[in-house]
Amino acid sequence: MIFLTRRATFSASHYYWNESWPAEKNERVFGRCANRNGHGHNYTLEVTVAGEPDPVTGFVVDLKWLKGVMGREVLAAYDHKHLNLDVPEFKHSIPTTENIAIAAWKRLEPVVTAAGVARLSRIRVYETPEIFAEYRGEA
Amino acid sequence: MIFLTRRATFSASHYYWNESWPAEKNERVFGRCANRNGHGHNYTLEVTVAGEPDPVTGFVVDLKWLKGVMGREVLAAYDHKHLNLDVPEFKHSIPTTENIAIAAWKRLEPVVTAAGVARLSRIRVYETPEIFAEYRGEA
Amino acid sequence: MIFLTRRATFSASHYYWNESWPAEKNERVFGRCANRNGHGHNYTLEVTVAGEPDPVTGFVVDLKWLKGVMGREVLAAYDHKHLNLDVPEFKHSIPTTENIAIAAWKRLEPVVTAAGVARLSRIRVYETPEIFAEYRGEA
Amino acid sequence: MIFLTRRATFSASHYYWNESWPAEKNERVFGRCANRNGHGHNYTLEVTVAGEPDPVTGFVVDLKWLKGVMGREVLAAYDHKHLNLDVPEFKHSIPTTENIAIAAWKRLEPVVTAAGVARLSRIRVYETPEIFAEYRGEA
Amino acid sequence: MIFLTRRATFSASHYYWNESWPAEKNERVFGRCANRNGHGHNYTLEVTVAGEPDPVTGFVVDLKWLKGVMGREVLAAYDHKHLNLDVPEFKHSIPTTENIAIAAWKRLEPVVTAAGVARLSRIRVYETPEIFAEYRGEA
Amino acid sequence: MIFLTRRATFSASHYYWNESWPAEKNERVFGRCANRNGHGHNYTLEVTVAGEPDPVTGFVVDLKWLKGVMGREVLAAYDHKHLNLDVPEFKHSIPTTENIAIAAWKRLEPVVTAAGVARLSRIRVYETPEIFAEYRGEA
Repeated sequence: MIFLTRRATFSASHYYWNESWPAEKNERVFGRCANRNGHGHNYTLEVTVAGEPDPVTGFVVDLKWLKGVMGREVLAAYDHKHLNLDVPEFKHSIPTTENIAIAAWKRLEPVVTAAGVARLSRIRVYETPEIFAEYRGEA
Repeated sequence: MIFLTRRATFSASHYYWNESWPAEKNERVFGRCANRNGHGHNYTLEVTVAGEPDPVTGFVVDLKWLKGVMGREVLAAYDHKHLNLDVPEFKHSIPTTENIAIAAWKRLEPVVTAAGVARLSRIRVYETPEIFAEYRGEA
Repeated sequence: MIFLTRRATFSASHYYWNESWPAEKNERVFGRCANRNGHGHNYTLEVTVAGEPDPVTGFVVDLKWLKGVMGREVLAAYDHKHLNLDVPEFKHSIPTTENIAIAAWKRLEPVVTAAGVARLSRIRVYETPEIFAEYRGEA
Repeated sequence: MIFLTRRATFSASHYYWNESWPAEKNERVFGRCANRNGHGHNYTLEVTVAGEPDPVTGFVVDLKWLKGVMGREVLAAYDHKHLNLDVPEFKHSIPTTENIAIAAWKRLEPVVTAAGVARLSRIRVYETPEIFAEYRGEA
Repeated sequence: MIFLTRRATFSASHYYWNESWPAEKNERVFGRCANRNGHGHNYTLEVTVAGEPDPVTGFVVDLKWLKGVMGREVLAAYDHKHLNLDVPEFKHSIPTTENIAIAAWKRLEPVVTAAGVARLSRIRVYETPEIFAEYRGEA
Repeated sequence: MIFLTRRATFSASHYYWNESWPAEKNERVFGRCANRNGHGHNYTLEVTVAGEPDPVTGFVVDLKWLKGVMGREVLAAYDHKHLNLDVPEFKHSIPTTENIAIAAWKRLEPVVTAAGVARLSRIRVYETPEIFAEYRGEA
C-alpha cells in the first residue's frame, strides 16, 4: 500500500459567528475572528489517496487526474470565495479548519471512490503554516 | 551600514473593484478577485531598517521595539480585517499588494524616523509565497 | 474524529554529555554535540489533539486555549533556556529530540486530558527542518 | 515508542515511458513526463525509524549513523543520476514517486533491521513540495 | 517605484560538460554534475518588474499577464525539458544557474519592455533552496 | 554582472550581556536573551558573490569551492559552538545577528578577494525565519 499526496492552495475569506448567540457572546468566544466583514487565509489542501501502484504505469492514481478532481470538486467552490457567504455547506456551519477538512472530504470521497482505483485516505487543511486539521473519514 | 529585517504575518480579506466601472468591466479586468464577498490571504509583512549597530548593545534597533511598532502601526489595523471595508486608506484605493506595501510604509516611516536611531529602508508584502511587492520610499 | 494541530517555536541550547562516561567517550559518541559550552536550535513543537468538532462552535478545542497551554506548560520552561541547565527533566536525562518529545508530552497530557474536551494524540519536535521526533504516548 | 525522522535531498532525472507501448500512447498517458531526454527534480527523502530511546544516550538511533546509511544505500545510487538509465531497479520499472518510495524502502530496510536497534517505520519521497508518496512496508 | 515579483517553478534536467575538454577534465572540474545521463532540479524562477502602480487598478502590471508571459517565454521552453538537449541557448553554453538567469532575462526583457508599462528589474533562479543566481541586466 | 548566492546553516548558542552593566540593566534591556546559561538558534548564513560567469565553465565561482570556504572560514568556528564563549570576535562584542553578519564578512572577504575571481557582495544571517541582518561591506 502506498499513500500518495497532492497539495493545492486556495485563498478564501471567512468569519466565525453563531447566529443564535448575541454579538457580545460571539465576540467573547471568537475574538478577532468574529469581525463580520471577514478576514482571510491562503489555505493549503492536502489530499492523500491509498492504493497499490499500477504495475504498468507505476501510478497509484494519475496525479493530473487528482489535480483535476481537487480543482473541480473543491477549489472551484472555495478559491477566491467567502466561505460563509459563497459556499453552501457553510451557510449553517462555521467554516473552522476542522469543518473545512470534513467538508472537503465529503466533496472528494465519492469521486475518488467512484474512480475505483484507490481510496481517499486523509485530508489535511492548513489555515496557516502553524494550524492544520486532519480528517480520515468515519470509523 | 546594516540592514535589519523583521517579518510578521496578518490575515485579511480584500476584493478588487473600481466603483467608477460597470460590473462587467470589473469582472473582466479583475477576474476572480472581483468577487464582492471578498477572499483572503495570509500576508507576510517584511520591514527592513538601515543603520549602524550600537557599539554597546550590538543592535541597529531593538527588535522587540520594532515588533511593537509593526504591531501597533500595521497589524492592529490590518490583521483579521477586511482591507476594503475596515481600513481607511483602502476606502478609495484598491488594496493590491503594491498599494499595501506603500500604505504600510506610510504608517511605519514616521515612527521609525521619529525614533532617530535608524531609517526605514524597505517594505515587502507577500500576498502568497509566489507574489510580493517591495517599496523603498520616494526618490 | 478530527486531528487538530498547532505549531510553536522555541529557541534553546543543549549539549549531549553522559556524566558517567569519561570525556573521551562522550566526544567519540556525541561528536560536536559534546561541546560543554552548548550549542542551540530553533525548535518547532507541534501538538496534535484528537476529538469531535463541537457542533455549535466547529472547534475540537479552542486554538487560543491550546496556544496558551503550550505557552504555559512548555515554552515558558524551554524557550530562551539552556535545556540541560535550566529544565528539571533534563538534569539527569539527555535532551535529545526524542527525549524532548516525551518530556513535552508529559507536560501537556495532564492539562489536555483535564480539560475533558479532546485527547492529546501526538507530539512532534523538530530540532532542525531535517530532524524530528514524534511521540504518541504509551500503549 | 518514538518515531525519529531524518530528511535528505537528492537531485535526479527521470522520464515516464513504457517500452511495450507505442510513442503515441506514452505521450497521451504520461504527457510532458514522456520527454525521452528526461527532466528532473530536487527530491526529498524522509526516513522514519521507530524504537525506544536508549536510556543512556537518549537516542533511538544515532542520527549520524542514519545519515550515513541513507547516503550509502540511497543517495550514492540516486543523487546526480538519471533514475531510468543509472539505477538498476528502474531499468524495467517506471521511477514514479510511488516506486521510488518502495525502492528506497527495499534499500534501507535490511540495513536498519540488521542493526538491531530500531525498525524502519516509514519512507516518504517528495518529488516537489506539492507531491509526495509514503510507504510503510508490506502488511 | 514599486518592485513587483512573481515566482514560478519548473522541473528540468541538465549536465555540465565542455565539449572541448577530455572526459577526465570534465569530471575533475564538474564532479558529479558531469554525468552525461543528466540529473535534474525543481528550479524556481523569480521575476521582478519595476514601475508605478496604475492609480485606477493599483497594478504595476497585471499579474495574470505576467504569469502568462513567464509561461509562454520561459516555462514552455524549460519545464519538463533537458536544458542541454532541448533548449537552443544551451546547445553551446553550459546551463549553470548563472547562465539560466541570463537566458531567462533575454527571453523576458523584450516582451516586458514592449508592453510599455514597467521595466524588467531582476531575475532570480533558484537551482535548490540553497543556491541561486540573480541578474539585473547589463549596466 | 551576476550575483550568485549559497546558503548554509549552523547551530549555535549565545546570550546578550554587557559586562559593564549591572545584572538588572542587562535583564531590562535584553529580556529573555540575558539568560547567562545561553539559548540557541539554527542560523542560516547566506553568502553572495558578484562577478561575470566564466565563458568556458559558466561559473561566477565554483560553488564547491565557495561551500568549502564557508565551511572552513565560518562554520568550523561557529557551528555547534557557544558564540560568546567559543568564538574570539564575540569575547568583547555581543553576538547579535547584526554583529554576526559583520563578523562573517570579515572572515570571508579576504579569502574571496584573494581568489581573484569575484567580489564578496552581501552577507545575510537569519537568526530565525523571521529575523535577519544583511551587510554589504563598508562604503
